[in-house]
Amino acid sequence: MPRAAVLLSGCGNRDGSEIHESVCAVIALDRKGWDIVYTAPAIPQQKTVSYIDGTKLPPRNTLEESARIARGKIVPLNEIHLENIDSVVIPGGLGVALTLCDFAVNGASCSINPEVNSFLKNANELGIPIGAMCIAPTLVARCLPGTTLTIGNDRTTADKIEKMGCRHVECSADKSVVDRQNRVVSTPAYMTATGPAQVLEGAISMVTALEELLKNQRG
Amino acid sequence: MPRAAVLLSGCGNRDGSEIHESVCAVIALDRKGWDIVYTAPAIPQQKTVSYIDGTKLPPRNTLEESARIARGKIVPLNEIHLENIDSVVIPGGLGVALTLCDFAVNGASCSINPEVNSFLKNANELGIPIGAMCIAPTLVARCLPGTTLTIGNDRTTADKIEKMGCRHVECSADKSVVDRQNRVVSTPAYMTATGPAQVLEGAISMVTALEELLKNQRG
Repeated sequence: MPRAAVLLSGCGNRDGSEIHESVCAVIALDRKGWDIVYTAPAIPQQKTVSYIDGTKLPPRNTLEESARIARGKIVPLNEIHLENIDSVVIPGGLGVALTLCDFAVNGASCSINPEVNSFLKNANELGIPIGAMCIAPTLVARCLPGTTLTIGNDRTTADKIEKMGCRHVECSADKSVVDRQNRVVSTPAYMTATGPAQVLEGAISMVTALEELLKNQRG
Repeated sequence: MPRAAVLLSGCGNRDGSEIHESVCAVIALDRKGWDIVYTAPAIPQQKTVSYIDGTKLPPRNTLEESARIARGKIVPLNEIHLENIDSVVIPGGLGVALTLCDFAVNGASCSINPEVNSFLKNANELGIPIGAMCIAPTLVARCLPGTTLTIGNDRTTADKIEKMGCRHVECSADKSVVDRQNRVVSTPAYMTATGPAQVLEGAISMVTALEELLKNQRG
């Protein structure tokens, strides 16, 4: 049974992991029999907001809030051993672009949380396929220049991805873009999706592509 | 296009709405073309806990936390007009049994938040079909005695449902139990499901049954 690490960044699209995307990813993995290990860095969220009026709330911890999506079963990122992991999946949400990296603030010149950066770089060096949803491809772009990625069809974000040395390919929400060379799959999710059913279609496409990459180990 | 009110109780299975169940419900509704209106009462959560170690956290607001699942688009329960609603769906999670009612504390003699109670009673009197997942059938049992419900196969909870004047029917996670007379559908979700893919199957079964009830208006 292959095992995926689902890398979370809090709980909610405005300051953490997008909840629908996270659940669609784990449904897509679960229906193909994958084992799921939820993980997140144990660091303060860069921002915590009220989803009613956008006001700032007292800071929350990324691992603690991500654990809500994980139903309490979550492993701190620094305790994940990549030798036990077959794939890494990163749902979108502003937490990715605020806490895991600061793309939402600094765009193409963003910096990545060091722990997240080495986790993804090491995974990539070991040939572990990475799946990224919605805004998460911007994190992958900064971490792994030279990758082909999609964030749907938003030209402003696509330009920034290309500025980070990557290639952007337009894609619809129900599909995914596969970079076989770099072993990265991306799907636009709520960058273009009209609702959760489309997000699930995109997640299924992503997981199917990750499985194909797994079957074809990097030569 | 039929419209469902998805009644939430916070964000997370230990003190709010179960996240996977909530998302599975909206996927099942969305793929059949339903319009979704998220709602929750604007009241303090009865409990807010850390999902890492179970310690108590400062209190959070049920509407504000539910809004995370709703991606910010949520209507306070007291602003929902039932004439615009075709069905009510209640995902599980301890928020249902702690905040919407106090079944988790008081069992069969639990009391229901008055606003939630009149909302569900009025919906039922208007013939609006109600779908309940996981532990949410206990809330429905207290509100609408005489209903046939499932919470899967947990005998202790089933006994309490029967003590509240309802009939309990065992059911697997991928299916649902339909009470045509009282227009209530229930599905066990994480009361028995082994993972999110099964929860989605159950949610699809529930929404299919709600659609059938809608086609057959109460005579």
